[in-house]
Amino acid sequence: MNLSAIKGFRGAFLDFIDDPFYVSELESVRYFPDGLLVIENGIIQDFGDYAEMHSKYPNLSITHYRDRLILPGFIDTHIHFPQTEMIAAYGEQLLEWLHQYTFPTERKFKEKSYAKKIASFFLDELLRNGTTTALVFTTIFPESVDAFFEAAGDRNLRAIAGKVMMDCNAPDYLKDTAQSSYEETKALIQKWHKNGRLLYAVTPRFAATSSEKQLQLAGKLLAEFPDVYLHTHLSENVKEVEWIRELFPHSQNYLDVYDRAGLVGDRSIFAHGVQLSPAEFKRLSEANSAISFCPTSNLFLGSGLFKLQQAKSQETPIKVGLGTDVGAGTSFSLLQTANEGYKVSQLQGRKLSSFQALFLATLGGAKALNLEEKIGNFDVGKEADFIVVNLQATPLMALRNSGELPQTLAEIGDRTFALMMLGDDRAISATYILGDRAKIT
Amino acid sequence: MNLSAIKGFRGAFLDFIDDPFYVSELESVRYFPDGLLVIENGIIQDFGDYAEMHSKYPNLSITHYRDRLILPGFIDTHIHFPQTEMIAAYGEQLLEWLHQYTFPTERKFKEKSYAKKIASFFLDELLRNGTTTALVFTTIFPESVDAFFEAAGDRNLRAIAGKVMMDCNAPDYLKDTAQSSYEETKALIQKWHKNGRLLYAVTPRFAATSSEKQLQLAGKLLAEFPDVYLHTHLSENVKEVEWIRELFPHSQNYLDVYDRAGLVGDRSIFAHGVQLSPAEFKRLSEANSAISFCPTSNLFLGSGLFKLQQAKSQETPIKVGLGTDVGAGTSFSLLQTANEGYKVSQLQGRKLSSFQALFLATLGGAKALNLEEKIGNFDVGKEADFIVVNLQATPLMALRNSGELPQTLAEIGDRTFALMMLGDDRAISATYILGDRAKIT
Repeated sequence: MNLSAIKGFRGAFLDFIDDPFYVSELESVRYFPDGLLVIENGIIQDFGDYAEMHSKYPNLSITHYRDRLILPGFIDTHIHFPQTEMIAAYGEQLLEWLHQYTFPTERKFKEKSYAKKIASFFLDELLRNGTTTALVFTTIFPESVDAFFEAAGDRNLRAIAGKVMMDCNAPDYLKDTAQSSYEETKALIQKWHKNGRLLYAVTPRFAATSSEKQLQLAGKLLAEFPDVYLHTHLSENVKEVEWIRELFPHSQNYLDVYDRAGLVGDRSIFAHGVQLSPAEFKRLSEANSAISFCPTSNLFLGSGLFKLQQAKSQETPIKVGLGTDVGAGTSFSLLQTANEGYKVSQLQGRKLSSFQALFLATLGGAKALNLEEKIGNFDVGKEADFIVVNLQATPLMALRNSGELPQTLAEIGDRTFALMMLGDDRAISATYILGDRAKIT
Repeated sequence: MNLSAIKGFRGAFLDFIDDPFYVSELESVRYFPDGLLVIENGIIQDFGDYAEMHSKYPNLSITHYRDRLILPGFIDTHIHFPQTEMIAAYGEQLLEWLHQYTFPTERKFKEKSYAKKIASFFLDELLRNGTTTALVFTTIFPESVDAFFEAAGDRNLRAIAGKVMMDCNAPDYLKDTAQSSYEETKALIQKWHKNGRLLYAVTPRFAATSSEKQLQLAGKLLAEFPDVYLHTHLSENVKEVEWIRELFPHSQNYLDVYDRAGLVGDRSIFAHGVQLSPAEFKRLSEANSAISFCPTSNLFLGSGLFKLQQAKSQETPIKVGLGTDVGAGTSFSLLQTANEGYKVSQLQGRKLSSFQALFLATLGGAKALNLEEKIGNFDVGKEADFIVVNLQATPLMALRNSGELPQTLAEIGDRTFALMMLGDDRAISATYILGDRAKIT
């Protein structure tokens, strides 16, 4: 990999400089129909309108993507790499689905060679779908964590993952103990956190499969390593919420179980939140925690409709990113996930514009992961992870999005809406990591 | 096209001989891991297990599809060909969506050359997605009906369509009159009904855009031509249902508006039915009418969750087919439509198996269209419309559905569930019409 050369990319660029849920499109969307991105050593050095900038760079080697739209790489804020092979498992809602399909599959990941094979496939699928950063569940086996980080490091990805902590209400073959999970996690943090672009997330599966002691030790790890993440599930399914109430009768609500262990902070990312109460929305907002909105998964498991508009309200603003949640989600594509997010909004009588959805998939995801200084848009100084998108990737998309790339925000908003409703991995022409084109095997 | 030769197809075949909503899989699913289909003049002459049959046909020219699953062609029971180009139109629910996007688009179809161009693209998309029969809305312009039937006839398709009847609550440029719609429909029936494989459906758009007189004349046409179809929309959206109540204060409910005009019979197909009351379910069942279940559209427009299990109950059994409802549906693929149907079921705490979904897309659709004597499965004597499916069409599908085609019903049910959750047009390797491979431009 040659990261030392300065290089340029010319084409239509779309990214976000503010949040279109709170400010106007004019204030939040940045669109250059003919733009120039200048990269040195994988970092963005300059960005803007081609006509205005190109005379500053007379000898720049420029890759010109005609008739393509260049976006920041997508950010998937919740996904399980060991569930790749069991995607689309039939017929169950959350708790039965875990026992019938998920746990037996995750058992295989004690074998590091197997875990490496699936990690490699998984990362290729992410890249094929235009996802350049993900927050990832592994399994309870440290071998699976090593396998994931090694594969992500090989690809030079900014990725976040952690060992699953799970010491109760699971099969014996898939349980650790509070103490062993603490020690193993600590060793893995020391090995992988800030190892290149890699980052670590303390990862109790969910409240039902961790003892209070394990949750307390997770909190202790966060105190000892204040810049690691907390990644877990929260309030996905009605039966799950009832079960948590039975398991933790002294907690005010589901979120409070985590709160009492010191797990609710501004580096905490909670997947789902479909069943959250107003008090929990309020607490997440105060704590500056993030929710990963996983619409495809929420529909596939019949969990319900996430109240996105409440999370993105003025009253209880919460950081939100999109998550595919593969294998309960049925697509690696954040375009397809945005498609389902639109439907979840429509069923609640609300709209989700393509700018809002693409914000969630890029800068919104970066903010949810506290990585907005590193990734999420084309600001100078950020890491050059980006994707080249074909708005006419299928015959139907070519009919719907016919003609040249438009000049106006309204028109590009319409085209990108068709992209999110009709597009999938075929719409991703190329994925770049730190300015280099990713090779997908 | 050479239909005269006798020809054979060998491979794994899956079809239905009864309804898996009412009888067991063993009684309803027919699966030959190594089967033989014999076709003469486009009609199925023989079908069964290859090992048992092949000695009867020593000189048969056989096309052998290894590692592929052969299914009856898919049947789309509700779709609008003029809405192809406006698929994925942003932000509105039904009534606003019609006025903002649909009506201006349909206006273009007065121009026959334009209608022909879109009809041709539309039929290619159907075939690319494995759909061999569809029940199709055109526009109020007879030119658009001719354009559709000419294009379908050129491709030798069994297709049903009709001129839209719409004489009120629509823009002037898109209205006919009760009398003109009667006369034009009559002429089109005489021209196209039973012209080759083509069939006609009397097609009032929906109760709100037809005067009582127009509905009465639609009923008169059904009386005059008892073997044509009735195709319309019913009870899709809450606001629509309220509006119908205001427009027709003397009707007991939405369905009753159609019933009073003689439009509710055993050749009537009603799209949606999301908001149906128990009385309407009962009446549809008594009348042996059909519902087209359009889950993708119902989610995209935020219309709601169709009660499939009530329609397929023992108490009020109703014929049901799947509909993409493009352009409110966002995919031409009945696999993707089945995917969304699963989610609609899960949100109601119900399961939809792949066998049930594929039944709806094949024999169930044929029954909904009263065409089960002609199409829908591989019974001897039926027209040989079928598709060749690749269960490993993408890298992810290849991982999920790895290995050879299975021998058991349980295993093929699991593979086809992955097909319906992960598959799209890429999974359709070939589409055959009357035993000939369709050429898709």
